[in-house]
Amino acid sequence: MDRPAKRAKFEAAWERVRDELIAHVVSKSMPPDAVEWYRNNLDYNVPGGKLNRGIAVVDTAEILKGAALDDDEYHKAAILGWGVELLQAFFLVSDDIMDSTTTRRGQPSWHHAQGIGMIALNDAIMLESTIYYLLKKHFRDTPYYVDLLELFHDTTFQTEMGQLIDLITAPEDHVDLSKFSLDRYRLIVTFKTAYYSFYLPVALAMLMSGVPTSYTLDGRTIEPYKVARSILLPLGEYFQIQDDFLDFSAPPEVLGKVGTDVINNKCSWCVNTALVLATPSQRAVLDDNYGRKDAAAEARVKEVFEAVGVREQYAKYEADVHRRLVEKIAVIPEGAERGTLKREIFTTFLEKIYQRTM
Amino acid sequence: MDRPAKRAKFEAAWERVRDELIAHVVSKSMPPDAVEWYRNNLDYNVPGGKLNRGIAVVDTAEILKGAALDDDEYHKAAILGWGVELLQAFFLVSDDIMDSTTTRRGQPSWHHAQGIGMIALNDAIMLESTIYYLLKKHFRDTPYYVDLLELFHDTTFQTEMGQLIDLITAPEDHVDLSKFSLDRYRLIVTFKTAYYSFYLPVALAMLMSGVPTSYTLDGRTIEPYKVARSILLPLGEYFQIQDDFLDFSAPPEVLGKVGTDVINNKCSWCVNTALVLATPSQRAVLDDNYGRKDAAAEARVKEVFEAVGVREQYAKYEADVHRRLVEKIAVIPEGAERGTLKREIFTTFLEKIYQRTM
Repeated sequence: MDRPAKRAKFEAAWERVRDELIAHVVSKSMPPDAVEWYRNNLDYNVPGGKLNRGIAVVDTAEILKGAALDDDEYHKAAILGWGVELLQAFFLVSDDIMDSTTTRRGQPSWHHAQGIGMIALNDAIMLESTIYYLLKKHFRDTPYYVDLLELFHDTTFQTEMGQLIDLITAPEDHVDLSKFSLDRYRLIVTFKTAYYSFYLPVALAMLMSGVPTSYTLDGRTIEPYKVARSILLPLGEYFQIQDDFLDFSAPPEVLGKVGTDVINNKCSWCVNTALVLATPSQRAVLDDNYGRKDAAAEARVKEVFEAVGVREQYAKYEADVHRRLVEKIAVIPEGAERGTLKREIFTTFLEKIYQRTM
Repeated sequence: MDRPAKRAKFEAAWERVRDELIAHVVSKSMPPDAVEWYRNNLDYNVPGGKLNRGIAVVDTAEILKGAALDDDEYHKAAILGWGVELLQAFFLVSDDIMDSTTTRRGQPSWHHAQGIGMIALNDAIMLESTIYYLLKKHFRDTPYYVDLLELFHDTTFQTEMGQLIDLITAPEDHVDLSKFSLDRYRLIVTFKTAYYSFYLPVALAMLMSGVPTSYTLDGRTIEPYKVARSILLPLGEYFQIQDDFLDFSAPPEVLGKVGTDVINNKCSWCVNTALVLATPSQRAVLDDNYGRKDAAAEARVKEVFEAVGVREQYAKYEADVHRRLVEKIAVIPEGAERGTLKREIFTTFLEKIYQRTM
């Protein structure tokens, strides 16, 4: 199945999930205006993104099975995928309120849309609650139900911790580059992005596919969830570093948006890398110009990025991390047994990311 | 144990819980400034309230046991109690952001406190995540772990639904009394308050005490969670109606605060009752003056409340609901068996509320 067909199938599952959610709140005596509000919250915030995280659950389940999923398997995987998308929607609506972001996915952000305002906060947490309703309805009788619940709980907490570290390190209105460092950057990115965007979808599919906590293959004891984490967290870091680098380096007509990390005081890989390499006078330029809502200041920062060699550093980093990940993936023992890891899970992710330009 | 001693013991359990939470985030490599932030979030927002909900878990567990709890039982009940208080803190911090409330419990509301701002939203959801960490740590190996998780999930969703209905019915900045009704009022109060404040603490203690989904006593089949709900939801409604009535009627020196429901366009029991009884000209006074930030308008509304007889209606309602609840409690079959309901659970609540003046 090609990508658009895959997406269309996954979106069709959303229609079914959404209708089921509406039927649920109607059955709980929610009045019609509240039902309508909840429906709009769901349809505005959940399905409009790239859906990479949600579709990754389905893809991974299929790779683990080694064959096409039957209808029931597909629907189960899709519900978990929509669970990830609901979690993402909960984070995005919340983040947009916190950052006063006015647009998201080419439309007004939810709190900024006509007539919504601060009710958006309650809507965000309703999106989160919706996940647990879906899990209860569809997975209550499975042996891995508790594992699903804990995985969503743990991932949510991890993401919120990452968000906290980010918020206190790089508040939009107070620049203090002495708080930045590559170590702190890695911590933020791992907690705020890598767990929920990379580890969560794969781990959900693994649970659903009956992958146990450990197994033995070729005489070696494998802990597959640890193995998955050891690849997917660095992969998530790589993805975010690339995202940060593209924000600085990619032509807007290729990227589809104008980079704003410098003017928004983001704790980005580029500035952290520049801070390591800068001479005292370059450092002074960064201190004076980073995070200012001013195109000339932004240009001075980007000159320092060029002068210290951020581009070369990135090329070196990318070659390096790619090689390391390829090696890590290559040594995963593979067999024909159901419920064991397949290298393809990870290579699929890596190939989508490597040398991405947009 | 008298009330202050009970409270002191419950607060001591918080110290232990809080230290354990800090140790957890430290072990997850949170940097010191983020750990400090999380500690402040916990200590500022969780323990400073009346703690009625949290202590109710301990009280109920003791009544169900029919004897003092041992240290381990006490600590387990206290952790569930602090789980309820964490849920409450999550709701209060969120509500204060949504309503732009500037004070809470005699101090600045969290988002309004020095240096916090919108990070409060992330802090609110971290309080929620904390509940599930505590449940996992302390209850993972109990047979009722999944039931605890589902009870917290369901209650959270119910409260958020109640909050949504309230927010769209009575936005602070747009008065439309045609949206109000006693039916809608009851729905809001049941979902927004009664489930989490009354049913949740008791149901948690029941789960912990091994109360099963159904049992037979005196030849009758009892579904104890349904019985508890059938009493605690009307009791929660009664509590909120009383709260609304005191907001209108209690002298500020007795109540400890000045009532603000009228000027804040609250969907209160008083206005809903007045709407039923008002003549067309009284209704016009309500339409023109309700929800205005203006003492003279407020006085005109309160005159209508007096004229239509809100005080008499309340006296009648209170006598009525008290009688109905006493009757419902009286017919619960009681036996000496462990894991069965005791009437005292409900009478304790009812006595605390009946003819409360503050």
